[in-house]
Amino acid sequence: MKPTEIKNVITEILESRKEEGGIKALYFVGCGGSNGALYPAKTFMERECANIKSALINSNEFVYSTPKDLGKNVIVCLSCHKGNTPETINAAKLAKEKGAAVIILTWKEESEITPFGDYIINYTFGDNKDIAGEKIICALLVAVELLNQTEGYEHYEEFMDGVGRIDGIVKHACKHVEKRAELFAKEYKDDKIIYTMASGAGYGAAYMQSICIFMEMQWIHSSSIHSGEFFHGPFEITDKEVPFVLQVSEGTNRPLDERALKFLKTYAKRIEVIDAKDLGLSTIDASVVDYFNHSLFTNVYPVYNKALAEERQHPLTTRRYMWKVEY
Amino acid sequence: MKPTEIKNVITEILESRKEEGGIKALYFVGCGGSNGALYPAKTFMERECANIKSALINSNEFVYSTPKDLGKNVIVCLSCHKGNTPETINAAKLAKEKGAAVIILTWKEESEITPFGDYIINYTFGDNKDIAGEKIICALLVAVELLNQTEGYEHYEEFMDGVGRIDGIVKHACKHVEKRAELFAKEYKDDKIIYTMASGAGYGAAYMQSICIFMEMQWIHSSSIHSGEFFHGPFEITDKEVPFVLQVSEGTNRPLDERALKFLKTYAKRIEVIDAKDLGLSTIDASVVDYFNHSLFTNVYPVYNKALAEERQHPLTTRRYMWKVEY
Repeated sequence: MKPTEIKNVITEILESRKEEGGIKALYFVGCGGSNGALYPAKTFMERECANIKSALINSNEFVYSTPKDLGKNVIVCLSCHKGNTPETINAAKLAKEKGAAVIILTWKEESEITPFGDYIINYTFGDNKDIAGEKIICALLVAVELLNQTEGYEHYEEFMDGVGRIDGIVKHACKHVEKRAELFAKEYKDDKIIYTMASGAGYGAAYMQSICIFMEMQWIHSSSIHSGEFFHGPFEITDKEVPFVLQVSEGTNRPLDERALKFLKTYAKRIEVIDAKDLGLSTIDASVVDYFNHSLFTNVYPVYNKALAEERQHPLTTRRYMWKVEY
Repeated sequence: MKPTEIKNVITEILESRKEEGGIKALYFVGCGGSNGALYPAKTFMERECANIKSALINSNEFVYSTPKDLGKNVIVCLSCHKGNTPETINAAKLAKEKGAAVIILTWKEESEITPFGDYIINYTFGDNKDIAGEKIICALLVAVELLNQTEGYEHYEEFMDGVGRIDGIVKHACKHVEKRAELFAKEYKDDKIIYTMASGAGYGAAYMQSICIFMEMQWIHSSSIHSGEFFHGPFEITDKEVPFVLQVSEGTNRPLDERALKFLKTYAKRIEVIDAKDLGLSTIDASVVDYFNHSLFTNVYPVYNKALAEERQHPLTTRRYMWKVEY
């Protein structure tokens, strides 16, 4: 769905709630990778919006421990890749029953979840997808439009300019890391644990890399450490053997990531640094660049992951439980 | 500080902001264990409060990527154990400069951070502390009072009854797990990685156990997995060797934890289950019990941790970087 269409979705929702007190909350709901992809949008609301409550909630937690205000003054924006995740379908069903405005981000045009959405936003996916059309940016646009059409967003133009640039930046960056990714795969192919580290709006990309790739697709132990939390506990496991993949973000959070990098350079030996500045993200305006880190990192990782899976002879499609056993 | 005093703090803040548009946001700010301890209060606001924005933010991220609305319509509630954490001091300083109402939860009566707090809430700590006076409950009371004195909170009486019960429940539970803790220590003393798992308002306790105990104080690799996220990636690392400590909570989130338990019982072999129902949490009213899980779990863990540290001959006070090197 194009940015102008998402703009219209928000206009329509706001119009429909005008006489009922407007929109007071925006909940992002999803599981696993679909949860992580909503992280930049949640961060955007937290930092930029004064009058609308927001949260990012796991689908099943949303169903069992539902926010009390769920109702007609709320937008629920769910992410569901193929439209068949039972927990997210239940969350959408509940949101619709309670009268919330339900936006569903999904790759498939028609699926089990679509009847429960008031608005279906189809996102891009797969080889050569348009990065600006991915669920990450779609969720961000929901937040940006909601802010702009209520309180106003002073960096709206810069944000839209960023949306126009991100595809080119990411595709260039993916080429740029190809050789490093091969070296990475050779170096880390036998490791039993690999940590990721990140902060700010791009943290969700580190979370996704840990849980969906290292743990799910490669059966490597992992955890995504927040660079700001690192020095308050986790850093004690640092030594010359333990591998870290560090996202050094561009934007306001950069000092946190650089501090972690400085420490790792001194006390760790096996670190892979993915630096958003090196990868060209700085061509996006400083006022909005924070929110584009996730799209960059999460799309650069697959270059590493492809190389790692080949080197380990462990295809990214291999599962032992997912879709195979009852759970 | 007693509950009635926290009540008065909120009354005074609301009174002072009356002519300036009231309180529109409550930010919880801290690092590491002081961040995790604020998790139940953040969850409380998310679920129970309709009109006040809330978020839990790492101290340094708060300083570098400050929410735009930080100002006189905002309460910032920071947690800082000895009052000397530089990142949290900077966050308090910034909040005060911007005119926010600054509440500082701290163990020490006087410290570097106290000049930057409008209100200092001293919490209990150490052997035989009153559990109802800990930072976890103090932060929750800030949230409960803010909700009750603005929108109203229908379960206020039940919550206060829970505050009256938690100390007895926890002290009984700690005795109850003593033998299990010793067996746990013997079984897991040589493990290189131990996962924790939890969901709901008690998730913060699993986070703290992972980062502050396993990683920081025992140099054991760890990650705190959300029970609802487990089935969307992390569960693929499950096998008969990998150890999990699972918090089965009491309250609305219990089905998520029970589902994880069922899976682990089938596919894992080495699991330690800490069940809030077994440990007596159910005597707290069902309408509020969710928010007391954290206090129970986080205070039962030390019994395990003491036994583990002794068995491993790795004192909980040993550090290689924290307070020892520059970072």
